[in-house]
Amino acid sequence: MGLTITEKIIKNHLVSGEMVKGSEIAIKIDRTLTQDSTGTMAYLQFEALGIDKVKTKQSVAYIDHNILQTGPENADDHLYIQTVAKKHGIYFSRPGNGICHQVNLERFDVPGDTLIGSDSHTPTAGAMGMLAIGAGGLDVAVAMGGGEYYINMPKVVKINLTGTFNPMVSGKDIILAVLKKFTVKGGVGKVFEYVGEGLKGISVPERATIANMGAELGATTSIFPSDERTLEYLKAQGREKDFIELKPDEDAVYDEEMDINLDELVPLAACPHSPDNVKSVKELKGTKVNQVAIGSCTNSSYLDMMRVANILEGNTVAENVSLVISPGSKQVLNMLAENGALAKMIAAGARILESACGPCIGMGQSPATNAISLRTFNRNFEGRSGTKSAQIYIVSPETAAVAAIKGYIEDPRVYEADLDIEMPKSFSINDNLIVPPAENGEDVEIVRGPNIKPFPKAKPLCEKVEGKVLIKVVDNITTDHIMPSNAKLLPYRSNIPHLADYCLTPCDAEFPKRAKENNGGIIVAGSNYGQGSSREHAALAPLYLGVKAVLAKSFARIHMANLINNGILPLVFENEADYNNIAENDELLIENAIDQVKSGVVKVKNITKNEEYKMLLNISELQKEILISGGRLNNIIKNRL
Amino acid sequence: MGLTITEKIIKNHLVSGEMVKGSEIAIKIDRTLTQDSTGTMAYLQFEALGIDKVKTKQSVAYIDHNILQTGPENADDHLYIQTVAKKHGIYFSRPGNGICHQVNLERFDVPGDTLIGSDSHTPTAGAMGMLAIGAGGLDVAVAMGGGEYYINMPKVVKINLTGTFNPMVSGKDIILAVLKKFTVKGGVGKVFEYVGEGLKGISVPERATIANMGAELGATTSIFPSDERTLEYLKAQGREKDFIELKPDEDAVYDEEMDINLDELVPLAACPHSPDNVKSVKELKGTKVNQVAIGSCTNSSYLDMMRVANILEGNTVAENVSLVISPGSKQVLNMLAENGALAKMIAAGARILESACGPCIGMGQSPATNAISLRTFNRNFEGRSGTKSAQIYIVSPETAAVAAIKGYIEDPRVYEADLDIEMPKSFSINDNLIVPPAENGEDVEIVRGPNIKPFPKAKPLCEKVEGKVLIKVVDNITTDHIMPSNAKLLPYRSNIPHLADYCLTPCDAEFPKRAKENNGGIIVAGSNYGQGSSREHAALAPLYLGVKAVLAKSFARIHMANLINNGILPLVFENEADYNNIAENDELLIENAIDQVKSGVVKVKNITKNEEYKMLLNISELQKEILISGGRLNNIIKNRL
Repeated sequence: MGLTITEKIIKNHLVSGEMVKGSEIAIKIDRTLTQDSTGTMAYLQFEALGIDKVKTKQSVAYIDHNILQTGPENADDHLYIQTVAKKHGIYFSRPGNGICHQVNLERFDVPGDTLIGSDSHTPTAGAMGMLAIGAGGLDVAVAMGGGEYYINMPKVVKINLTGTFNPMVSGKDIILAVLKKFTVKGGVGKVFEYVGEGLKGISVPERATIANMGAELGATTSIFPSDERTLEYLKAQGREKDFIELKPDEDAVYDEEMDINLDELVPLAACPHSPDNVKSVKELKGTKVNQVAIGSCTNSSYLDMMRVANILEGNTVAENVSLVISPGSKQVLNMLAENGALAKMIAAGARILESACGPCIGMGQSPATNAISLRTFNRNFEGRSGTKSAQIYIVSPETAAVAAIKGYIEDPRVYEADLDIEMPKSFSINDNLIVPPAENGEDVEIVRGPNIKPFPKAKPLCEKVEGKVLIKVVDNITTDHIMPSNAKLLPYRSNIPHLADYCLTPCDAEFPKRAKENNGGIIVAGSNYGQGSSREHAALAPLYLGVKAVLAKSFARIHMANLINNGILPLVFENEADYNNIAENDELLIENAIDQVKSGVVKVKNITKNEEYKMLLNISELQKEILISGGRLNNIIKNRL
Repeated sequence: MGLTITEKIIKNHLVSGEMVKGSEIAIKIDRTLTQDSTGTMAYLQFEALGIDKVKTKQSVAYIDHNILQTGPENADDHLYIQTVAKKHGIYFSRPGNGICHQVNLERFDVPGDTLIGSDSHTPTAGAMGMLAIGAGGLDVAVAMGGGEYYINMPKVVKINLTGTFNPMVSGKDIILAVLKKFTVKGGVGKVFEYVGEGLKGISVPERATIANMGAELGATTSIFPSDERTLEYLKAQGREKDFIELKPDEDAVYDEEMDINLDELVPLAACPHSPDNVKSVKELKGTKVNQVAIGSCTNSSYLDMMRVANILEGNTVAENVSLVISPGSKQVLNMLAENGALAKMIAAGARILESACGPCIGMGQSPATNAISLRTFNRNFEGRSGTKSAQIYIVSPETAAVAAIKGYIEDPRVYEADLDIEMPKSFSINDNLIVPPAENGEDVEIVRGPNIKPFPKAKPLCEKVEGKVLIKVVDNITTDHIMPSNAKLLPYRSNIPHLADYCLTPCDAEFPKRAKENNGGIIVAGSNYGQGSSREHAALAPLYLGVKAVLAKSFARIHMANLINNGILPLVFENEADYNNIAENDELLIENAIDQVKSGVVKVKNITKNEEYKMLLNISELQKEILISGGRLNNIIKNRL
């Protein structure tokens, strides 16, 4: 039976497990990337592993998230990352060099390799025929240390492209069409593989737009073949040597299929407040616009920017619109500054922002109250822009640029501009903002600003686990409840002691204080505990506060994994009614904890009430080992010794 | 007796008073400008005047301070300013168009005219031969309404320039030399007039650097002749028609003089933490640098930027340095994008920020902890950068650019670059980000975001003023104590109810609550009450909280004026020992308040202690009238009716 591209790469990187859909496999990771909002913690975790030099083919640390720098914390974090990278064999992309995914595509992505990155849009590299997956900081730290990465063997969806784009229709409209069909939950456990004749007309940067926003499907990743367009792009980046051809076997078997005929594709928009709330731009015609934002890891390539410049040329941004443009990388910005395209944008009245994530992650350019903002980004969740009442539409650069001039949403196909942009035969290559690691890392001193605090480490599991019930919460508690993340707290992602003071405070302002007074204890929760964002900090802050176990009706998958990785017992009530019997401040006790964890059934005594609850621990043998070792880091260190 | 330039302009604009040094005069204001951090309040105050259309020759509203926009407040303020401007006859410079002083110089400043602006660096326009003064928002509101502006007739200092600049020495070094001699207090009550043969070699934008930073002398303003260089600049801006020649009479008499021989001038730097802590750059050689920031209203002209671009060309920013550059205006940025200079900066690794105030006002790019930052700005006060421990040096663009490449401070004269920049014969003129006012303002609806709250208005003085002592504070309370200003509170400058909750909280966290519970009351203070920044909010917040009088041993001059403008009685103990007898919560009473205010002596009864204190009110007749009317706005409205 023939293989898909996905299966070929997995087969080449399989460390353990079997390639059976849905079952856990471990794969070798060739490359990693981090950005600065998750990177500090990933490098603190890497340091905890005690390894001198990364064992990957190449690892790169980017600065692209926290670049407003309204206090010393950001610059301190940048300096920590710069020095820790230099010491441990990691390339460092300086602030100003651009968005991680755009720069990685330009300078580092290699067809056929595996990549994990501590950013959910790491799948962008799928445009280069890589298997590229977003992961937690600890996963990236472990991969840098040479450890394997665990996923469930994905299903593979075939997206078959035929035809050619009409003018003013582009890559963004493809992924919006896919989102419309599959929805934001439709990609879970799947890889989306793009194939077909239509690919001939789609350059690597346009493929990157599609692979990038595949993240919004909830997909494991998205991937494209490595073909003549890939070679052309690598050549233009002076990296022809990195090329290998990669395509699915003729008889490859896919789990699902979707056909998209580009001849029939029209400009699309994701309406508030979900990336899958997709309508045609034509339907939205006439909607008054207050802000247009062009850029982000989704749509900030040279090609995107040139199209925008040509649309803007000779026009003025409408009086009611603020147009902000963030070119994706120094390479892109430099080329636009050289060829006059940037001057066209500026002349039209665009505000040029740094080459960074910027408004896409709510770092600046929050719209006015109730404003309508058209953005070429990837997410339009309520409030993500920094303005809760704002209405965010996700569109292509072409649709965005036309709306900026008009002042309202207009089908861009009625607008005439020269969009026949030639992909450069050779990009402007200047890697002077990428600092290579030191030859001899021993000489490098790591600079730790006052905001960089040591990473809390769990202790091996004790025979006796006891503690007070510190808090009892209801169903559907999110990681935003457990560890709030906002502009005020984001600069403290490397300072768990500070963050811990906000742990679970949306549920109970006294929780951190109570946990400290009792030297930690136990959390009791309803069902779906820990849903939402994958942030590890929702396990790290409780760990810091001494939380030893969480008793819940059920857990969200990723948060449960994060608890295990950090040595906190995630126990599930066999009998949900027991939840009702436990009260805050009850004293709980688990005896023979190690044996009980091994058995997968844990009996919890309620000393106060003189009761006993049967709790389940339905996890893999490796995960049990991790819990007993006191978390994943301790487990790795133990196994290495 | 001949006249100085200053005296000529004052004479042409004198409304009342006599031109006797130190005595109060009123002058007619031709033009005004506002920026967005002070502008919202100025326009709320203008609205309170109830005038349809500004009575100035021209008024311009700029957006240049709050452009990071990390929440809806900034964009809401921008929209309020945009609509209020359109309605009332004011030109609106959209975000992205640049820093107010740079754009005003390019497009609006006119020799011989008067200008006030709600920004302390308004004197920048002195480079164009204007009398340009920084003022409070209320002063600007009153001027827009056609009211006169009050100053004390200034002394005039002659700065006599001879010779020509050596390479790598420029305007910044002149003003640093003046600051070294006069110090930050040496300019109070004075205008600095620059004359002499040396001026021939100094273009208008370089003169602007000097006039701009004259603010750091504490000067009323600085001024240059309007000469052949002025004509040349106006021609290149397509504004030849605005030119008039303006120079001092040959027999003009100056109060003080300083000679500067440009042949002997060397690169200078203001060291931490004061603009007058000036040393030669040579002395500082070898100091390691972590950040270089180029831009601000002091040094962001086309000429400055071209020199920087030529120094950076073909080099790379040192590994330990973050170089940020903010060109001063859209005109400058556009020209750099057109002629390749911007590409040179980007290629070298500079981070290009928006054309705005940015890091100069602590809006982003805060350095790392303990970092050394070289900045081409005007102020290096401790903590202003957003990083309390940072060491800020104020230097020229030439010195800054060389340090960025080297990674340490170096005398720029050892560095070779082509700095023979021709001033353009014609600047790129494109005013498409300047929105003219509506023909018919009636049709314009003003948009008030939820953060724009009505401006609190005082009531006419009652015969009986009574209230509890809400707080008793010590000597030297600053306006930072009375109304804290920081990144958290800055977005609320147009929301006095919100700000009021922080009023005097650095002295007593309960003050706002207590004031509200008692429906206002009276403040008792030591000497020098209200020193520091001139912010009106330090009077507006107490007004909102119902404060009726402040009893102090003495007042700082500007804060006392602000209290009067807002109808709060500023009473000075005749006998300072009385201060000791009053306690918090004492009930105070002033009877026959109107007559007593007129008399200049006010007796305050302490009901609780059964005592009486004799308080002085040593103010002008107009100020007494203002207090009786219930503040300046009420006074103006009353007089007009």
